[in-house]
Amino acid sequence: MKGIIFVIDGMGDRPVKELGNQTPLENANTPYMNKMVEEGITGIMDTIRPGVRPGSDTAHLTLLGYDPYEVYTGRGPFEAAGVNIDVKPGDIAFRCNFATAEDDLTVIDRRAGRIKSGTDKIAETIRQMDLDENVEVIFKESDAHRAVLVLRGKGLSDQITDADPKHEGNKPKTVKALDDSEEAKFTAGLLNKFVEKSYEMLKDHPVNLERIENCENPANIVLPRGVGAVPAIEPFEEKYGLKGACAAETGLIKGIAKIAGLDIIDIPGATGGIDTDLESVGKHIIATLKDDQYDFVLVNVDGADEAGHDGDITGKRDFLEKVDRIIMKEIYEMDDIVLFVTADHSTPVSVGDHTGDPVPVFIKASGLRVDDITEYGERYAAKGGLNRIRGSDVMYIIRDLMNVISKFGA
Amino acid sequence: MKGIIFVIDGMGDRPVKELGNQTPLENANTPYMNKMVEEGITGIMDTIRPGVRPGSDTAHLTLLGYDPYEVYTGRGPFEAAGVNIDVKPGDIAFRCNFATAEDDLTVIDRRAGRIKSGTDKIAETIRQMDLDENVEVIFKESDAHRAVLVLRGKGLSDQITDADPKHEGNKPKTVKALDDSEEAKFTAGLLNKFVEKSYEMLKDHPVNLERIENCENPANIVLPRGVGAVPAIEPFEEKYGLKGACAAETGLIKGIAKIAGLDIIDIPGATGGIDTDLESVGKHIIATLKDDQYDFVLVNVDGADEAGHDGDITGKRDFLEKVDRIIMKEIYEMDDIVLFVTADHSTPVSVGDHTGDPVPVFIKASGLRVDDITEYGERYAAKGGLNRIRGSDVMYIIRDLMNVISKFGA
Repeated sequence: MKGIIFVIDGMGDRPVKELGNQTPLENANTPYMNKMVEEGITGIMDTIRPGVRPGSDTAHLTLLGYDPYEVYTGRGPFEAAGVNIDVKPGDIAFRCNFATAEDDLTVIDRRAGRIKSGTDKIAETIRQMDLDENVEVIFKESDAHRAVLVLRGKGLSDQITDADPKHEGNKPKTVKALDDSEEAKFTAGLLNKFVEKSYEMLKDHPVNLERIENCENPANIVLPRGVGAVPAIEPFEEKYGLKGACAAETGLIKGIAKIAGLDIIDIPGATGGIDTDLESVGKHIIATLKDDQYDFVLVNVDGADEAGHDGDITGKRDFLEKVDRIIMKEIYEMDDIVLFVTADHSTPVSVGDHTGDPVPVFIKASGLRVDDITEYGERYAAKGGLNRIRGSDVMYIIRDLMNVISKFGA
Repeated sequence: MKGIIFVIDGMGDRPVKELGNQTPLENANTPYMNKMVEEGITGIMDTIRPGVRPGSDTAHLTLLGYDPYEVYTGRGPFEAAGVNIDVKPGDIAFRCNFATAEDDLTVIDRRAGRIKSGTDKIAETIRQMDLDENVEVIFKESDAHRAVLVLRGKGLSDQITDADPKHEGNKPKTVKALDDSEEAKFTAGLLNKFVEKSYEMLKDHPVNLERIENCENPANIVLPRGVGAVPAIEPFEEKYGLKGACAAETGLIKGIAKIAGLDIIDIPGATGGIDTDLESVGKHIIATLKDDQYDFVLVNVDGADEAGHDGDITGKRDFLEKVDRIIMKEIYEMDDIVLFVTADHSTPVSVGDHTGDPVPVFIKASGLRVDDITEYGERYAAKGGLNRIRGSDVMYIIRDLMNVISKFGA
């Protein structure tokens, strides 16, 4: 018996005029999900609580059974784990941009011409930075202009502001302590030093000299943001006695899974957009679901969320149809699974960002109290037999249906 | 975009035989609320939690997003704020009755002949009372035989019993400390002194001498009850970044709103009963809703609750129809609002008091997942797209629909 949480990121939506007041999911032709809905049980879910707009990170933490109000301090730790840095509780982690600055540090391009190559060599240079004798600088490039920074040592704090000026034409913001602690003041000071030193070390870097020659913006400064302290999370396997894996497209979700101690499955061709190589993504997901070493798999496909952010109505609907045709078709045939299909949050195309609308849910498993809902959609699910549940219920429900949860009491 | 919580106090009910086993709301002809239900989304709500019988005070605190288990210690502070006393956190406040006592302090009329005038002069006398050099006595008459007392100073506690004997023919109860603290003992002693001194100061008061001459019971003693410590509440505007107002009929609701920092709108002709001047009440509510300086308005009309307490079946139903015809008709035409219509609790006419039955809810806003419910009523709403929510969800849902809530995470 295998437990599966299958997250179609950002799937939830609101009625769209252009689709005859249906949502993209209601409008989509999804025969395989519909069959599973017909043979299963449905409902709606508030991932965190009604009206709260979850990030993908806080939502996935909740679905895995962790309290985001306890363990989430910022995005940095999860991004760092997502690029395979072996983060440790207490590390202070940041997302970073490689950017282009002038000599007075005014940022003229926050994405350094969306630099595509050479960031590994730049990262190698940054790793040589001598910031403080008691603090280790861990730094790694991610995709394109993105990177992560991890500070490891004593006397550090995540109670500090961002360096990213957000808008071009401004200098990096002076990082400030958010509380009166020595730790926050010390860490803020380190960050300011880090930003300045990054410019000194990178302005004449060979990769950048070559970019300048090619009329490309150099990646000559590093701008950290999204600070967070790496939380001490009880590993998933200890918490539940289930060996788990994660098949996901984006670094953020992989990072959450890694910090929770799940095995990370690499998926070639995954872009996290509607242009992702869904054949490849699907093949790797199915292979993971069929891998006998795992009792539990967390799956995330990201295109619907991207389409929601972009306001792309038909792109979102068509992506859902593709997921149904390519992946759900295969899953429909699988036995001995407890499958929980949902979204982490709604990303309505009309809003272009996450909202607090509940997300639709269905469960495929044996022994269910099958309800009379026959189509997958936000408003059909609202009439389902599960009624309205919360994200923190999911790991309980799955383990109950897997028959691997103990009785509370006698 | 304006957020509105519109509370029809005590509206929720149970099926009534005399109405063909419909509830007063189900039986009422409410075309404007029905239209908004048809174009909106419905559900049921447990204001505090299922089966808990909320007071109007704890219910409204919850709806505004405050935890009543944290901030509510008694009714006194809210009654005091409701008559415009500028209460401060730490003040100990009481509701009081002017009553009639004999020389041995036996109370023979708990309402002093439902005294209608002269209480302002009596209150002026009470304010001269020298109770303790470190404690300020703040005292103000309310409507009829009602008044409020606030003690301000150091070393006070709300852990004390009531002085009100509840039944006539008894002497005032000796106020006792509920814990072993010096503060509770000190405050209990003050209260006993207050009750005794009130008789001494009032027995020959000119207002009372005149009443005795007119064969009316004198208001010669003050009986405090409903003790509570004024809570330190985060002001609504700081908590949510929304400037808010409250259009309500009763002092209790106005007091809650005032302590939360909402502007209080005075409504001439409001009685809080089914005899209220609903034209005037409606006019002032609509004017407040249209006042551009406010991002949020809390509305409360109280007649349905009074009818529920009185067991007045048709009075309750007819009042709901009047609210629909006079106020909801106007609100139906309004745009750019997120309107949340509900009750604070059920007050079934068959029970004559608040019960824990969930209350019906509908939301009017744009972008909703409109459901297929077309009439407003407890049992119709139970089939709506919101399913079952809690009072503590309301400010989250409203801010989500107003698009003024930040994402939690990334």
